[in-house]
Amino acid sequence: MGKSIAIVGSGLVGTVLAIALKQEGHQVFVYEKGDDIRTIDFSGRSINLALSERGWKMLKRVGLEEKVRQFGIPMHQRAIHHVNREEHQPYGIHGEAIWAVSRGGLNKKLVEWAEEVGVQFVFNTPIWSVDTKRGVLYTSESEYQEWKEIQHDVVFGADGAYSKVRSCLQRRSRFEYQQSYLPIGYKELVIPAKAAGVFAMDEYSFHIWPRKDFMLIALPNMDGSFTCTLFMPYQGEVSFEAIKTQEQVIAFFQTYFPDALQLMPDLVELYTANPVNSLVTTTCFPWVYKDKVALIGDAAHAVVPFYGQGLNAGLEDVDVLLDCLQQNPENWMEALDQYQYSRKVNADAIAELSYRNFREMSELTANPLFLLRKKIESKFAKKYPDLWLPLYDRVTFSKGSYQEALAIGDEQAAIMDVIMETEQIEIIWDSPEIEEKLKQLINENRGF
Amino acid sequence: MGKSIAIVGSGLVGTVLAIALKQEGHQVFVYEKGDDIRTIDFSGRSINLALSERGWKMLKRVGLEEKVRQFGIPMHQRAIHHVNREEHQPYGIHGEAIWAVSRGGLNKKLVEWAEEVGVQFVFNTPIWSVDTKRGVLYTSESEYQEWKEIQHDVVFGADGAYSKVRSCLQRRSRFEYQQSYLPIGYKELVIPAKAAGVFAMDEYSFHIWPRKDFMLIALPNMDGSFTCTLFMPYQGEVSFEAIKTQEQVIAFFQTYFPDALQLMPDLVELYTANPVNSLVTTTCFPWVYKDKVALIGDAAHAVVPFYGQGLNAGLEDVDVLLDCLQQNPENWMEALDQYQYSRKVNADAIAELSYRNFREMSELTANPLFLLRKKIESKFAKKYPDLWLPLYDRVTFSKGSYQEALAIGDEQAAIMDVIMETEQIEIIWDSPEIEEKLKQLINENRGF
Repeated sequence: MGKSIAIVGSGLVGTVLAIALKQEGHQVFVYEKGDDIRTIDFSGRSINLALSERGWKMLKRVGLEEKVRQFGIPMHQRAIHHVNREEHQPYGIHGEAIWAVSRGGLNKKLVEWAEEVGVQFVFNTPIWSVDTKRGVLYTSESEYQEWKEIQHDVVFGADGAYSKVRSCLQRRSRFEYQQSYLPIGYKELVIPAKAAGVFAMDEYSFHIWPRKDFMLIALPNMDGSFTCTLFMPYQGEVSFEAIKTQEQVIAFFQTYFPDALQLMPDLVELYTANPVNSLVTTTCFPWVYKDKVALIGDAAHAVVPFYGQGLNAGLEDVDVLLDCLQQNPENWMEALDQYQYSRKVNADAIAELSYRNFREMSELTANPLFLLRKKIESKFAKKYPDLWLPLYDRVTFSKGSYQEALAIGDEQAAIMDVIMETEQIEIIWDSPEIEEKLKQLINENRGF
Repeated sequence: MGKSIAIVGSGLVGTVLAIALKQEGHQVFVYEKGDDIRTIDFSGRSINLALSERGWKMLKRVGLEEKVRQFGIPMHQRAIHHVNREEHQPYGIHGEAIWAVSRGGLNKKLVEWAEEVGVQFVFNTPIWSVDTKRGVLYTSESEYQEWKEIQHDVVFGADGAYSKVRSCLQRRSRFEYQQSYLPIGYKELVIPAKAAGVFAMDEYSFHIWPRKDFMLIALPNMDGSFTCTLFMPYQGEVSFEAIKTQEQVIAFFQTYFPDALQLMPDLVELYTANPVNSLVTTTCFPWVYKDKVALIGDAAHAVVPFYGQGLNAGLEDVDVLLDCLQQNPENWMEALDQYQYSRKVNADAIAELSYRNFREMSELTANPLFLLRKKIESKFAKKYPDLWLPLYDRVTFSKGSYQEALAIGDEQAAIMDVIMETEQIEIIWDSPEIEEKLKQLINENRGF
């Protein structure tokens, strides 16, 4: 009855997709080029991710929401570290939180749960090519050795930003594709626990040190540590290239992140040891080939991490895919086509929003007028939730589409531009006059 | 002394590059996935190309200009076929011509000449991958069979719009890449010779049937035939999709190209037999990896064919590359870096110009005001060659850079927009008043 399905990539999206399709009654095989992630030691620390509404919705659909919450840490606010003081900014207008979850830890659990429901994992099996017409995968230990064929009914490419499955679709005529890098890279650092499980800063906050052209962020881990990420230009006055010696590392942190420096005893070792990683955006279309091949998650739309939506968008892909399959159980070609048209516009929207959010995070959160703007929005939204949902909340805490969020966000920004031009806005921001003006402007835009 | 150089692709650019590098004293090996082109029968007909100044300059540099002119046909004008009448438009303001040359015929000759100077061709040898760091090529009969290593000092990817060499560079971090297709495809057709060597239309013209959203063109072949290309949207009211039956083919030509229909006895057979091909633009950067790998021609910058500059731009790449190598004979890393920075901006410019020129060819050449505009420009340029060189001439008949042509062309267009807004321009276009106004506008723009 069910189909024989190959999923390339045992990352978070691939594994959740595997669980979901298995629950729908299909035979599911996951091909992973590397080792079983459960055998890899992360020492409790790894790249963090922030789960929000869209991610939780999909985890709930496969019955895993509560299990995952067990090892997540809710972050209700941004803790903004200016050079000389700290300031807090709630995330959601209703006290919502985004959840810090260890990427490696979650992935291990998902593989375990997937095996429990009968998904079959095939590790150490790199897929070098896909015959899209036949749905055949090619594997061998090394790319230059003779390839063996693996046949399934359907192939999903959940193999990330550098997807091999996508590169096979790319060879087909009329495949639109773009990959583009930011001039900014990132390096991971750590603020260790003060003692086992004892955090050195408030653990229910997303910590951010905005410095205009660069920034540091920190997310809590279950063991009491924080994983920090330094985002900075590759080249220029303040840049990875400009910091060459251990003394320069210390001086840089002393100047820009003095409070963080106090909490990083291993800074120099980690700075020296860890690589500078790049930030890519990829867009492509089509995402599917007939009823044979489909891309999902980062393989279809890799975005920069500044909206914390990469995984959430990938899990929403799975959610929409399941809807489309349930509506067309006998017609996978139609289902996959509906899936790609439904998701493509939203993937483009979150790519744009993510790209823009670097500016907001690094520059604007250090700008008093921007903070005032947020405060006006937030106050108004709390009082008139039917009239105004801030963009961040719409992206992070609502189920409305990214496409709609982007469009409405642009309209709201135009309205707030007018509000912020009001004379003496710093003084009268909390007045009935401003509230009325906002209502009038919303009304002119025929409301949200 | 010389380097051991691998060129992937035995097309026109790869072969000219091979001849040039051999003449510089290097050992040159050309790897071609297909058969020796000299064994392939084109029956005297194939995709045409138009050679212009940049192409001739490079052919002259390797001593082949005169040889190639032997089998080219100079086209001095556009013959514009309106539905009910024909009109002629000279190409260059000084009577210059672009040259129709058979792509297949030229390629055969170039391979022959390259062998004569000692270039070694390795046919039926597909390159599946390149180890960019080591400059190692991987080959085998089929991609899934065990690959063998081939080692050279330097690898050039001259393997066209779907370059495998480029796809290996694409896997490296921070490689910018975009491939994008027009919603327009093309199909090749033929106007046969009336008798051996007897042309059915004027052979010294580039024939064009502009019809706004679609167009037909025809270029002469040495055997008396014309190779025709129909450019048309894939979908829509008038489109490849809309023409389904043999009757519809005839009706379509009867309506839009009645004069061409009379000259195409095999229309229905060819229309049915020949595929609809796609039109891709690719851009990427970097083009080189250290002193090991470099892209050239379409592999670095595939453009749509509407400016007739694809091959000319590729041959100009070779010309600039040779300059850079001669300036840095001991430092290939520096030479290749200079090459890529010198060419990238110009490749982007010709991509943009080519993209725009579809509109000009298909829509505007049928627009009386556009033709008037050309006439004003042309007359003024002939009288004041130091003040005005039309964009087409600058791209096609000058050696100035594409980047400069694009920039100056935009300034000229702004000036002509003002001129065309003059009241009664249709009547006074040839007056001293307009001439003065042009001079004044040029002066305000600080002249060309």
